[in-house]
Amino acid sequence: MSRETRYLILAEGFSADAHYGKTMRGVLRYRRDDVAVILDSTRNAGDTEGGVPVVRTVAEAKEHAPNTALVGVATQGGRFPPAWLDLLKECIEEGLDIENGLHVFLSEDPNLEELAHRHGVELRDLRKPPRDLSTATGANLAVPATIVLTVGSDCAIGKMTVSLELDREARARGIESEFVPTGQTGIAIAGWGIAVDAVVADFIAGAAERLVVEGHERGGELLWVEGQGSLINPVYSGVTLGLYHGSTPHLLVLCHETGREEIEGCGGGPHPIPPLRDLVELHERTALPARQAKVAAIALNTRRLVDDDDARAAIAAAENETGLPADDPVRFGAAKLVDAVLLHKG
Amino acid sequence: MSRETRYLILAEGFSADAHYGKTMRGVLRYRRDDVAVILDSTRNAGDTEGGVPVVRTVAEAKEHAPNTALVGVATQGGRFPPAWLDLLKECIEEGLDIENGLHVFLSEDPNLEELAHRHGVELRDLRKPPRDLSTATGANLAVPATIVLTVGSDCAIGKMTVSLELDREARARGIESEFVPTGQTGIAIAGWGIAVDAVVADFIAGAAERLVVEGHERGGELLWVEGQGSLINPVYSGVTLGLYHGSTPHLLVLCHETGREEIEGCGGGPHPIPPLRDLVELHERTALPARQAKVAAIALNTRRLVDDDDARAAIAAAENETGLPADDPVRFGAAKLVDAVLLHKG
Repeated sequence: MSRETRYLILAEGFSADAHYGKTMRGVLRYRRDDVAVILDSTRNAGDTEGGVPVVRTVAEAKEHAPNTALVGVATQGGRFPPAWLDLLKECIEEGLDIENGLHVFLSEDPNLEELAHRHGVELRDLRKPPRDLSTATGANLAVPATIVLTVGSDCAIGKMTVSLELDREARARGIESEFVPTGQTGIAIAGWGIAVDAVVADFIAGAAERLVVEGHERGGELLWVEGQGSLINPVYSGVTLGLYHGSTPHLLVLCHETGREEIEGCGGGPHPIPPLRDLVELHERTALPARQAKVAAIALNTRRLVDDDDARAAIAAAENETGLPADDPVRFGAAKLVDAVLLHKG
Repeated sequence: MSRETRYLILAEGFSADAHYGKTMRGVLRYRRDDVAVILDSTRNAGDTEGGVPVVRTVAEAKEHAPNTALVGVATQGGRFPPAWLDLLKECIEEGLDIENGLHVFLSEDPNLEELAHRHGVELRDLRKPPRDLSTATGANLAVPATIVLTVGSDCAIGKMTVSLELDREARARGIESEFVPTGQTGIAIAGWGIAVDAVVADFIAGAAERLVVEGHERGGELLWVEGQGSLINPVYSGVTLGLYHGSTPHLLVLCHETGREEIEGCGGGPHPIPPLRDLVELHERTALPARQAKVAAIALNTRRLVDDDDARAAIAAAENETGLPADDPVRFGAAKLVDAVLLHKG
């Protein structure tokens, strides 16, 4: 994007929600300087999120001079609640570009396109796949970089955050490191990528292959591929395995949230999460014969534990259970997990 | 379809190819009476396939009075070789409806649509997903039927054929049995279904769920879900796992082709196929915790073995290796495999 982005994050009804507000939280954490204001009419006057004012109307938001409205919620299935369309029209009429990470493409809505054209603004669908995407070719296995994929026990437990934190730590050490975005939030943060969950099912691995090839072309010798879903998530496991096999990782970082015992947000359950040691074995067992990925470390999301000592105890327990290095890179820094990866990288 | 279908199968360049001619072969085997003629300009005058004349031009084909042209090849990635468009236009100009199972949708080509409209013919894209498709809800786990999914060591080894043969045998026994089509060939044969490899990646399990729900609504107490790809196929494994978890099978029939030692048709290899016992373990290991699928039997494709005794020996070896009933349902009938499934069904 040419000009500096000043985001109005649209988080209507979800700005306080850890799961459905995940795009907002990711952008707040990693593009804080580009966020001017957040909109959520269900919040109280004077509320803030991560130090950013939360307002209740587009009119109020205008006072903070945003130039781009970012859809900051990821609804299940990625469709738009009808009321949202009015909100988007209001933003367009106020002259704001729109960035949308949902499965419904604004640029394919003739009315919105016409309105955007009339007001000279751009509709950017972050999840819209490249037109020329196709099946994987095997070029992934030829990428001369170390590829590290985050996998996990469920969705929305911090796989993207772990990849971003480990990339930041590796860069700080002077390593040619690249974060490889595979979802709408990662794309909003990094400014490139393909939402692998939005491509034609036959092309998941092809999209993942293209991403690791591009990650290396961008100068990455160490690629941190943003994971999606979970091999045991009944709704999204297909995307997870396609991304796994298509990105051909050498190493995996297994992400888990302390205290989460069941897959969340899917019906027909209960869908229990197996022990960490079983998840390590499952992920190594499902590696491609041609690229035997190993789990290098456990990234534990300890946000539910208030006390740091409790968090350290949970991390120690994960290490005892799996025999692998574990840490919470958000809470205690990414050094230990990067060390573990570099040890394997050799 | 109201009137009786008389197919002209378009198999240009591939009519003698077991893999890329797979749609043609499936329709020839299971809708033989509806096939009038096959077109492939690379064949010799007087050639036949399965007793159907193979001609070299649309003009010659017209003598057999077809009313529908079926795209009979499945190219990798599902795109159209450019020369094909001229062939399709010629068919449209001759007044033939078109059925297309590739990823490129003819109904989205304005020129073809206009031409079809002008000649009063219909363009049917078998792989075009339902507009209202979304993520899985858990309704799959509530379907009151026994669900049997075919899985396999690779693509194009006969998973669809095994599902169709076992469905036919079950029907012959008076069981309320339904074949559940998940790919373009199955859809062309059964006249319903969703091509799960063509849906948005996030919706694979949602599509599979809808198919087992509909299979039961159609009266199926025993559902034979057509498998796709393979958990160890680097190109298509995402579709395979999404279909597996989304169709929530109680039982699996593991399909393998005797003599196939590597995954075919994908680069970056070699991609060795593990021993059958490892494949059984892998498939049971990757079942959803909420639906612990078991492998009920092995379906062995012995087409590469000329001698029946060699085929029987290969089947016996598969049984010794896995401790499961095995047979080649095409060569020796589906009774043994249906017995194995009903044993588990209880």
